[in-house]
Amino acid sequence: MALTLEEVCAEVLKRTTPSSDERRRVLELAEKLRGWVRAAADEAGIEAEVRVEGSVAKDTWLREEPEIDIFMRVPTTMPREAFGTICLEIAKKATKGYKQVERFAEHPYLESFINTTRVNIVPCYRVNQGEWISATDRTPFHTDYVKSLLNDKLRSQIRLLKRFMKGTGVYGAEIRVGGFSGYLCELLTLHHGSFVEFLRSIADWRESRIIDYEGYYKGREQEARKIFDQPLVVVDPVDKGRNVAAAARKERVDELVVASRAFLTNPHLEFFYPRETISYTPEKLVHAIKTRGSTIVFVRFRRVRAVPDILWGQLYKSQRSLRKMLQQYDFNIIRDHVWSDERDLNMLIFEVEQRFLPLIKKHLGPPIEKRQECEKFLRKHVGVTSTISGPRIEGGRWVVGIKRRYTDIVNMVGEKLKGGGRRVGVAGLISQAVANTLEILVNEEIAKLYPSNAEFAKFLTEYLEGKPRWLSGIDEEN
Amino acid sequence: MALTLEEVCAEVLKRTTPSSDERRRVLELAEKLRGWVRAAADEAGIEAEVRVEGSVAKDTWLREEPEIDIFMRVPTTMPREAFGTICLEIAKKATKGYKQVERFAEHPYLESFINTTRVNIVPCYRVNQGEWISATDRTPFHTDYVKSLLNDKLRSQIRLLKRFMKGTGVYGAEIRVGGFSGYLCELLTLHHGSFVEFLRSIADWRESRIIDYEGYYKGREQEARKIFDQPLVVVDPVDKGRNVAAAARKERVDELVVASRAFLTNPHLEFFYPRETISYTPEKLVHAIKTRGSTIVFVRFRRVRAVPDILWGQLYKSQRSLRKMLQQYDFNIIRDHVWSDERDLNMLIFEVEQRFLPLIKKHLGPPIEKRQECEKFLRKHVGVTSTISGPRIEGGRWVVGIKRRYTDIVNMVGEKLKGGGRRVGVAGLISQAVANTLEILVNEEIAKLYPSNAEFAKFLTEYLEGKPRWLSGIDEEN
Repeated sequence: MALTLEEVCAEVLKRTTPSSDERRRVLELAEKLRGWVRAAADEAGIEAEVRVEGSVAKDTWLREEPEIDIFMRVPTTMPREAFGTICLEIAKKATKGYKQVERFAEHPYLESFINTTRVNIVPCYRVNQGEWISATDRTPFHTDYVKSLLNDKLRSQIRLLKRFMKGTGVYGAEIRVGGFSGYLCELLTLHHGSFVEFLRSIADWRESRIIDYEGYYKGREQEARKIFDQPLVVVDPVDKGRNVAAAARKERVDELVVASRAFLTNPHLEFFYPRETISYTPEKLVHAIKTRGSTIVFVRFRRVRAVPDILWGQLYKSQRSLRKMLQQYDFNIIRDHVWSDERDLNMLIFEVEQRFLPLIKKHLGPPIEKRQECEKFLRKHVGVTSTISGPRIEGGRWVVGIKRRYTDIVNMVGEKLKGGGRRVGVAGLISQAVANTLEILVNEEIAKLYPSNAEFAKFLTEYLEGKPRWLSGIDEEN
Repeated sequence: MALTLEEVCAEVLKRTTPSSDERRRVLELAEKLRGWVRAAADEAGIEAEVRVEGSVAKDTWLREEPEIDIFMRVPTTMPREAFGTICLEIAKKATKGYKQVERFAEHPYLESFINTTRVNIVPCYRVNQGEWISATDRTPFHTDYVKSLLNDKLRSQIRLLKRFMKGTGVYGAEIRVGGFSGYLCELLTLHHGSFVEFLRSIADWRESRIIDYEGYYKGREQEARKIFDQPLVVVDPVDKGRNVAAAARKERVDELVVASRAFLTNPHLEFFYPRETISYTPEKLVHAIKTRGSTIVFVRFRRVRAVPDILWGQLYKSQRSLRKMLQQYDFNIIRDHVWSDERDLNMLIFEVEQRFLPLIKKHLGPPIEKRQECEKFLRKHVGVTSTISGPRIEGGRWVVGIKRRYTDIVNMVGEKLKGGGRRVGVAGLISQAVANTLEILVNEEIAKLYPSNAEFAKFLTEYLEGKPRWLSGIDEEN
């Protein structure tokens, strides 16, 4: 019994819109927190403006997951280091007795939990618009800007879009996701007027797009394209030099595009609330891996001491380096992936066509027209032990069959990563962990690790299925 | 003790130039043969002009291998079929009692052996220049043309070039070789004035070249390039519409180019008289194949009833078709080759990186910008048994992991060639032999066949060495 698009949206709104009771309770809690921070700042003798920001201030939060942002706007005379000392101390004092986690984006802030509600207490400078010092200085301006334009209808549309982005896995500007922030959802909704209008528009994606709600670049779009070289550009209404979508990687934009199309064609709650992945049993896992016939190399290492954005940045960088290395050594990559529980289990995954390559490698030399290069090529390859066969002429050039340095991907990865792999481009903190705790698992060898980590098991099942969760959900239903 | 270029050439001339005694004996034999053919034609009532043609007529033959061409120029009123009946009968009668082999190029002729001397008795039409009916009608004009320009110095230079081409494996216009004919050697020498000048010139090969000794296309070289689309064009002095080098494949030209360079840098008798290849012992063969780590598939079949040019034409055509098929099914070809003893043993050889491919095959779908194609792609690949993983987004497009039709090259080749392989492009006569006598051998399985055929053993040794024989010779010496 398929639902219409309107019915799906209505159901999503029912689930995501806070009741007036819930709204009142969250606002009361936010006010209480503001008071606590206010008092702690006063006590420390810091002249700070304390404000509620983010989705709670704008009433665009999702009922299922309220998250309260309290900002302390401090004078520009305060040195930057004080964010990590004085300001952090104030935040800790304000939420004393509750669970606290020190966080770090561009600068330190405190994450606390009041019961189940996540609270972020974030320092920033009280600056005039445009005179930004730290990255979070813009946030109060964002709050004011969006609040001045919102109405209840738009708030619903924003909630739909946020939920859609969460459900399709593209929500979040953190490095791990590389997707769309809440503020970006708000601007996109403002610009297009409604959730569905935005989806229709993004579904027609071609190459790149600039959204410039305030018209800063009106008539100068080409110029804007040069300033911002990302595929999706959403000019920040409070800072025309900033792309609000700068963190959104092309892959996430693409995924949003195809999900939008699929949803418009086939509206479904799965796009907002995908069903839980049921992990394969270990037996099914082994069967699935064996059936593919490919070789999956799991590069596993333990604890990296870094906040999530740093960890994921370094994981992705290391992944790119190793991918490039494998390709240089002729391993055909089918897919590669990164996984981390941000605690003890980190994993770089490379799936290649073959574990073993033949010893002989066909090496193309210069075209015969290039006489000097040909001479050099012959001097290098005739009568040396690295030559297995040739040189001979083929297709207008010299070619030679030379000995391959590595024929086994597992040997190669092991050797290259011994000592941390800095020389093959593994990032610094990752390299330390690799040097001390590297373990390489191949194909079904992963089964020994698989049952001990439910999150990883779910991830690996999804990896093997290899498709967006909304596609799995709709597919299973049919 | 290296020889100079002059010393090498002097030694080659000593070996290749007939003594006056030898010359006299061959000319006497040629005259005798002419008389026999003349008499047999008269007896048959055929009004033929019988002439000695080719290298003996021009005194450009190599002492080691005299070959006498006797042409019967018959009236244009004689039907073409008579070449294979009346003319062949005359030739047979003329050399009655000697070993005879019926041959067929564009039309039938007779090859006889008077003791060890090969004699070709060839019919053609007595036509005016330019009014060609059969392919061999030009030959008497070639003889007259070249004779009118030769002197003893040029004859020596031609002998050097012919011997060099034989030694480097590029001599012969037959399909098997796809190289340079004797007449072509003569023209190239005439044009460049000497053997070494020709080598210097060809050593500087770039892309393509037109040699137009008679200047038919003077000032219209671009036009000539359009008429002849081969890399090397040598306009026939007796027929400006014909490229004397039309049969020379690019690979042979390339081989001549690099051999010329090598010889000029390092003059050596090896280029004219390469040492005999010493075949690997079966043990060494097996070791050499195993060491490479590649997979060599030998497609073997027996007797094909066809004259050599037809046989080789069909072998090469079948090779190209199968090469294309293997590539379509993702097998990475390192090298492929054809071998035949023109009797009972025919072989198509494909060396690939891997015998087995993984079951999963990464199949790239449309870029997400192409919305309609994306929909079609999803309809095709979602929820079907041929899909192992995906579809998912990667690099701006849909990709899917699908089941490969064939994972084992041996299975695939066997299946595709069952019944002869006409559908995968195996040529007609080859297909018949394949249908009845196909045997597929992989890697060291060839060892069981290897000792029984010395020529094949030599070929396979050379294949595994994989370099020009002159390079092997010089290499071994150093």
